[in-house]
Amino acid sequence: MDLGVHTPALADRSFADALAFLADRGVTAVEPGVGGFPGEDHLRRETYLDDESARDDLRRTLDEHGMFISALATHNNPLHPDDERAARADTELRETIRLADHLDVETVTCFSGLPAGGPNDETPNWITAPWPPEHASALSYQWDLAIDYWSELAAYADDHGVDVAIEAHPNMLVYEPTGVLRLREETTDRIGANLDPSHFYWQGISITDAIRYLGDHDAIHHVHAKDTRRYDANARVRGVLDTTPFEDESERSWLFRTVGYGHGARHWKDVISTLRLVGYDGAISIEHEDSLTDSVDGLEKAIEFLAPIVFRADADSPFWTEGVE
Amino acid sequence: MDLGVHTPALADRSFADALAFLADRGVTAVEPGVGGFPGEDHLRRETYLDDESARDDLRRTLDEHGMFISALATHNNPLHPDDERAARADTELRETIRLADHLDVETVTCFSGLPAGGPNDETPNWITAPWPPEHASALSYQWDLAIDYWSELAAYADDHGVDVAIEAHPNMLVYEPTGVLRLREETTDRIGANLDPSHFYWQGISITDAIRYLGDHDAIHHVHAKDTRRYDANARVRGVLDTTPFEDESERSWLFRTVGYGHGARHWKDVISTLRLVGYDGAISIEHEDSLTDSVDGLEKAIEFLAPIVFRADADSPFWTEGVE
Amino acid sequence: MDLGVHTPALADRSFADALAFLADRGVTAVEPGVGGFPGEDHLRRETYLDDESARDDLRRTLDEHGMFISALATHNNPLHPDDERAARADTELRETIRLADHLDVETVTCFSGLPAGGPNDETPNWITAPWPPEHASALSYQWDLAIDYWSELAAYADDHGVDVAIEAHPNMLVYEPTGVLRLREETTDRIGANLDPSHFYWQGISITDAIRYLGDHDAIHHVHAKDTRRYDANARVRGVLDTTPFEDESERSWLFRTVGYGHGARHWKDVISTLRLVGYDGAISIEHEDSLTDSVDGLEKAIEFLAPIVFRADADSPFWTEGVE
Amino acid sequence: MDLGVHTPALADRSFADALAFLADRGVTAVEPGVGGFPGEDHLRRETYLDDESARDDLRRTLDEHGMFISALATHNNPLHPDDERAARADTELRETIRLADHLDVETVTCFSGLPAGGPNDETPNWITAPWPPEHASALSYQWDLAIDYWSELAAYADDHGVDVAIEAHPNMLVYEPTGVLRLREETTDRIGANLDPSHFYWQGISITDAIRYLGDHDAIHHVHAKDTRRYDANARVRGVLDTTPFEDESERSWLFRTVGYGHGARHWKDVISTLRLVGYDGAISIEHEDSLTDSVDGLEKAIEFLAPIVFRADADSPFWTEGVE
Amino acid sequence: MDLGVHTPALADRSFADALAFLADRGVTAVEPGVGGFPGEDHLRRETYLDDESARDDLRRTLDEHGMFISALATHNNPLHPDDERAARADTELRETIRLADHLDVETVTCFSGLPAGGPNDETPNWITAPWPPEHASALSYQWDLAIDYWSELAAYADDHGVDVAIEAHPNMLVYEPTGVLRLREETTDRIGANLDPSHFYWQGISITDAIRYLGDHDAIHHVHAKDTRRYDANARVRGVLDTTPFEDESERSWLFRTVGYGHGARHWKDVISTLRLVGYDGAISIEHEDSLTDSVDGLEKAIEFLAPIVFRADADSPFWTEGVE
Amino acid sequence: MDLGVHTPALADRSFADALAFLADRGVTAVEPGVGGFPGEDHLRRETYLDDESARDDLRRTLDEHGMFISALATHNNPLHPDDERAARADTELRETIRLADHLDVETVTCFSGLPAGGPNDETPNWITAPWPPEHASALSYQWDLAIDYWSELAAYADDHGVDVAIEAHPNMLVYEPTGVLRLREETTDRIGANLDPSHFYWQGISITDAIRYLGDHDAIHHVHAKDTRRYDANARVRGVLDTTPFEDESERSWLFRTVGYGHGARHWKDVISTLRLVGYDGAISIEHEDSLTDSVDGLEKAIEFLAPIVFRADADSPFWTEGVE
Repeated sequence: MDLGVHTPALADRSFADALAFLADRGVTAVEPGVGGFPGEDHLRRETYLDDESARDDLRRTLDEHGMFISALATHNNPLHPDDERAARADTELRETIRLADHLDVETVTCFSGLPAGGPNDETPNWITAPWPPEHASALSYQWDLAIDYWSELAAYADDHGVDVAIEAHPNMLVYEPTGVLRLREETTDRIGANLDPSHFYWQGISITDAIRYLGDHDAIHHVHAKDTRRYDANARVRGVLDTTPFEDESERSWLFRTVGYGHGARHWKDVISTLRLVGYDGAISIEHEDSLTDSVDGLEKAIEFLAPIVFRADADSPFWTEGVE
Repeated sequence: MDLGVHTPALADRSFADALAFLADRGVTAVEPGVGGFPGEDHLRRETYLDDESARDDLRRTLDEHGMFISALATHNNPLHPDDERAARADTELRETIRLADHLDVETVTCFSGLPAGGPNDETPNWITAPWPPEHASALSYQWDLAIDYWSELAAYADDHGVDVAIEAHPNMLVYEPTGVLRLREETTDRIGANLDPSHFYWQGISITDAIRYLGDHDAIHHVHAKDTRRYDANARVRGVLDTTPFEDESERSWLFRTVGYGHGARHWKDVISTLRLVGYDGAISIEHEDSLTDSVDGLEKAIEFLAPIVFRADADSPFWTEGVE
Repeated sequence: MDLGVHTPALADRSFADALAFLADRGVTAVEPGVGGFPGEDHLRRETYLDDESARDDLRRTLDEHGMFISALATHNNPLHPDDERAARADTELRETIRLADHLDVETVTCFSGLPAGGPNDETPNWITAPWPPEHASALSYQWDLAIDYWSELAAYADDHGVDVAIEAHPNMLVYEPTGVLRLREETTDRIGANLDPSHFYWQGISITDAIRYLGDHDAIHHVHAKDTRRYDANARVRGVLDTTPFEDESERSWLFRTVGYGHGARHWKDVISTLRLVGYDGAISIEHEDSLTDSVDGLEKAIEFLAPIVFRADADSPFWTEGVE
Repeated sequence: MDLGVHTPALADRSFADALAFLADRGVTAVEPGVGGFPGEDHLRRETYLDDESARDDLRRTLDEHGMFISALATHNNPLHPDDERAARADTELRETIRLADHLDVETVTCFSGLPAGGPNDETPNWITAPWPPEHASALSYQWDLAIDYWSELAAYADDHGVDVAIEAHPNMLVYEPTGVLRLREETTDRIGANLDPSHFYWQGISITDAIRYLGDHDAIHHVHAKDTRRYDANARVRGVLDTTPFEDESERSWLFRTVGYGHGARHWKDVISTLRLVGYDGAISIEHEDSLTDSVDGLEKAIEFLAPIVFRADADSPFWTEGVE
Repeated sequence: MDLGVHTPALADRSFADALAFLADRGVTAVEPGVGGFPGEDHLRRETYLDDESARDDLRRTLDEHGMFISALATHNNPLHPDDERAARADTELRETIRLADHLDVETVTCFSGLPAGGPNDETPNWITAPWPPEHASALSYQWDLAIDYWSELAAYADDHGVDVAIEAHPNMLVYEPTGVLRLREETTDRIGANLDPSHFYWQGISITDAIRYLGDHDAIHHVHAKDTRRYDANARVRGVLDTTPFEDESERSWLFRTVGYGHGARHWKDVISTLRLVGYDGAISIEHEDSLTDSVDGLEKAIEFLAPIVFRADADSPFWTEGVE
Repeated sequence: MDLGVHTPALADRSFADALAFLADRGVTAVEPGVGGFPGEDHLRRETYLDDESARDDLRRTLDEHGMFISALATHNNPLHPDDERAARADTELRETIRLADHLDVETVTCFSGLPAGGPNDETPNWITAPWPPEHASALSYQWDLAIDYWSELAAYADDHGVDVAIEAHPNMLVYEPTGVLRLREETTDRIGANLDPSHFYWQGISITDAIRYLGDHDAIHHVHAKDTRRYDANARVRGVLDTTPFEDESERSWLFRTVGYGHGARHWKDVISTLRLVGYDGAISIEHEDSLTDSVDGLEKAIEFLAPIVFRADADSPFWTEGVE
């Protein structure tokens, strides 16, 4: 396994500086943003897409720091009801896939996107309850759109030999493990999960059960290490469906937190161990989104926390069970 | 306190028969449907709105069975983007308020309604997460609409001396206690809660904390006794945001259940006791929505379960704390 | 086992009426107050102490209702720093013991009493933490007093063949199981517990472990069925050491509650089962002190709750473990 | 669903008296013993096997009490290393199957049996841990024997149109759900579970997960309602693998208990509801093995506890989800 | 935030040596004792009170080690019924406030003190239960005394621009958060909390709820990092009100423990995070009182445990929530 | 306390290399295998038993690395029904005791062994449930054998001044704390526990209660630090009695895990603290058996986890409780 970092949190320094900072702390993989919400501060698509020598420079820089790219990230909404925005997201995604192919990066991370509730609507409509029935109908409409889009996109990814790792996310059509698997089964195995626990905790999902469920279908393409803390002082009354702005931290029912501040070491050891149990041995990519401290402190804390937890060796056989005759 | 029943579950028999059935089992209050989703099988608005002698008959029937009406129910969506549907819901609500006034019923139960995500959209859009920011904007648009509508409605209810009890409900703008209180504070004290625990359990809300929170603002106008059971076998992987149809019971993460099948006696004793602690002494109105058994078995079980729990006497003073000098 | 009731909660009716009320509901034992805090509304000591024919009347009345007296109750503070109050409590206790002897009642229930913190002080001083050291010294002073007093009292009880059942209680020297056992071991086996769970819950004591602990020393002389509910909404911030007046119910961290409103049926089945496991087969005497409802509703609820739980038969042998050869 | 009783607990009265006792309390199904450990006090095989008129009498007696036989019980060890004992158990089983066929009883309940650890051993050997390796080898030997035996037996049962319901049980080869399913899959669908929760609690099995697991394979042929209480006071130190004799109740880590004394009402509602969720609608057969009270008190308590929990009606459709257009 | 240490645990070395020891381990704040129970080994009041050059030396020593004083500690009982002891405690407190003023230290830490139960009593009387009523009366008497005293003291502190941080503590009038707030509200905002979790755990207080409660009133003036472990093996039977001497460690229901030995990392991350959520960014001052190891090992363990948990950076804005248009 | 390591996990390197590896990481004690299941890769009995100069070399090597031997390990089955295997195990054990004596090692670690179910059987028979009765009889037979054997062995160990530390283990007669104590009480105090928590977790034993129980009888001779994780995903259905091969990791209900991967830091702090509370201050010997990573990573993780937890100083007195007069 490799300890990785999703680098937009270090957007205020150059990619080389970010790599140096991380390598010093034992990180060996990065997941830079190349478009959409994560931005492309560290790795502009147009710089690298059609310039092999720029890519060579990039490879050299990575090698110098003993790093590799676990995935290229471009999170956006290719199913947006605004055609222009959808098209832009689609372009980002396809270019990212092409760039991944050029850079021998195996995986692209993204969102599923979210359509409106019907063909005439302008606002994405996140449907999480089936009644009254018009909501169930709208959901059905959305899945039809999504299957069409992602079938094409999966074919495109396959042409480039790249896996698509979808982060199940609120306000996206795919927001929990069964949705990931449905999209995978309605398209191809190129579509899988960028397993990010932070969105699952407050939905009441067991991370280890989710890993076993997705792992049983070989559907884990990438992993984010991001934590969430539920704050009972607020959740007791407001519940987990919280629309409070993220900057009103003390009022929210849950917050994204530095890894280890949402769940303790034993939980994360279970997460890492269960990933190994289902055969995932790729990068564990830390995503920093904790406004109770800054990016540097947050990343340092997360790395310091996870480094002794992640396995530094391959699985072994249980040698001690050999008997004495 | 009075043990009551929301009567649409007995729609297949006449109101008089329903009353007889319930009175035999110790129930003393009813909450009939008079429009919207609950229908008006037992009590058609047009029959009673302008006919005092029909109302006299109704009063007599109730008296015969030792019953009173705790609330008139008309759950619908007066904020629906389809103007015609919104208008129909609004009419139902106003007529119900007027009818309540005529019948000396203190409370009307209903939903808050749910607008679309913007003025040009056709589908109600339930917003439960604030990011990406367009969702927060849509939510703001919805609240503006709702405050306008409910301010007028509250004034109408006040003219009739009737309280409006809103059931916080998924796929409605108001779905948890802080939303109830916001709508109350943005309008008048005529707007309050029809406290229905069943929608709160799966959101991770503590029912007793919710009761204290709403009770501290005198905002509990009516109470539903309806239970929910979370099914970990499914929720572990799918989480609580479950769009599975209600008829696929074994696949769902949670189901509405007969009172006592979701939470045990001590929980319901806490619910009843906390209602008393905050000064609510009205009806506890059982709503049956459990497809694992039928309405008769479900209502009987719920009544049998709750009857020994509900207080049959007023609160007392702690006489035993007087000392001996 | 017998289901009993501590009768001061029915002080507003005559003893005969109270017995009739209870017998109708299946109760077979009573624990009337004969002095101190419980008062003596139902059974005045002076009426019965020296009047055999009055006692005959009493026996007849009990027989008519199929009742027996499980214990006579006189809870007060015989160690009070005010000599007159202490003397009065001592007289109550001795007269109660004598009366129990006359009536063939095996047990007298009471408190341990609580001295002041030193010989010159006027206020009883309940010591529950050993530091600063002057508190530990005061506690030592108190135990010396208590051992002297209770050694004499135990001898008096033994002369009358009566067991003394001390209810461990806050603001009394003996407030938890190890204190009961210490007093027993420093005096004689006539001193034991009137096991009342209600004071143990908020101290964090496991009732079943306490029963096994006292039962292993045959130290359970009588049992109260009284429940307590901890209210986290207040205890989270204030903790369990709550001096809020008992009439400010909604503010308190815990309240005495009707049996079953503090802890559920399985807990009380454990209590009853563990009593049987340690060989206690006497009365389970319900004490009503719940100001969220009145005495009649509270007693009825408690009886309705406990009657199906208490064993109606003796323990059996595990006949099913006999094998087939 | 039908509430039933396993009748050996009433062996001290005639079958007719037992039926009367149970019918009076609302029971509608019985599971009499016809051999092996349960004995055959109520229903001797030889009396009924070849005597149609005796069987007619039996049918009449059942009808008079509104009862039916949910299963015939013959629990023994047909894999016993002592050939004679194994043969006797085999005969019991086959005769019971034949008798069930004659009586139109659909199910026979039994154990899987347990071989010794090898062909030369005389003592049944219950293997629950795979290391040292000789234990794994012995287990493999045992399964080979069992598959041979039960394949034949399943064919015999199929010839008679009778289902075999195996109670997973300690000291039997099949002691937990995956063992039941393995035996079913290695033989035929005639082999399934007599689901008895009492043996699963102390093994740390979730009863509702076990029901879903077996139910997903249609493998629940019959259900026992029997409860177990884990006693932490002992289990904390001794653990759940407890060889303490069942008559030393206060020393054991767990005891079989009257239904409701091991787990509360909500748990049993979950058990009953989950059985319905997986499509089981047969008898819930109470087995009394609780030496803290006698059979009559125990059965009455269990019936009183379960009767209001078991469904008295079929599952319904969720009529309330129909929308208003 | 700064990681600090309450230095009496290092009383066996000079203040300079203590500072060096702590600075080497990353500590940046100290809270020396200057009287009362903490003693004044490191910082004698008389040495510094009226000697500016001595104070200059002290400042230099602190600067050399990169340290500052977060608070001066003088814990005693200024409400003691023994007038002389009360006067001594009062003098200590006032001199400490004056010294803090001279040294630009913002805070003085102390206890509330505890009076006797009445004007004629000699022993402090800690009242934690309101019944029998004479205890409630005594408590009322004590609060009157305390409000008088602390009103004057708060004025004195205000004259010196110093905050008083009261450690809620057993055997002191103020022992839990609502008591702190009452004393603050009855006096001035100069009175606030020295939040020390160790005394709250065994009272059943939620530390994070207590922080939010006090933080909502800006009432946290200082923070102690001290842990407590509840030992169920004893608490099950004895409860949490434990008068066992602190040297009989294995018999006690709870012990003060090195930070991290009472509660795990996630708990302490919650404590630190909640302090930040309510705006506290001062020192986290470790207090060592764990007799299972010595001061050096205990302090090293606590520092090693807390250093990676305390925030090394200020709170940030949630930059990641900016959308893509 | 000393942090130690059971060295068979490093069998692929020389003893000197293993010592160097461990000393570099702060380990100060080792427990080498000298026979039976642990093998004797690092320390062959025949090399050292009768060669004082070889032993001198060994002592020098240990001294060079600042190490001592906490125990010699020889785990096997001296009660095996195969006489030859039993004899070999007995010889190993006696030679190990003699070697320990020569090397001034105080303790020998081993298993209790397990007989067959009767004198004519060939397979060890692990009995964990008392019914059907033939299992209880076989257990009685086994204990008779064991008491004979271990009485002799204890005498032999006493002659050599060596303690025997038995690891309670599944598929051994002694598998939980009460079994250890029984064997000790039936023999001599030379027989005690090698307390290994890993076998207790899945049996539902509380490690700290087990430590107090054994510690109260001074019966802890040695301690293993080995962890176990229960995997609910499997245990929910299969329970804890799991015969799945150890190499099918993802299917098992529990796995041996690197210390800290089964239970978190607070648990292990409780284990270490409770050992101190009962007076155990010997080695904490890490045993690596976790096939999810290799021996080097596993040992490093375990050492890194435990080193800051184990006490580096002796217990202290609670100096802070001295009062101020």
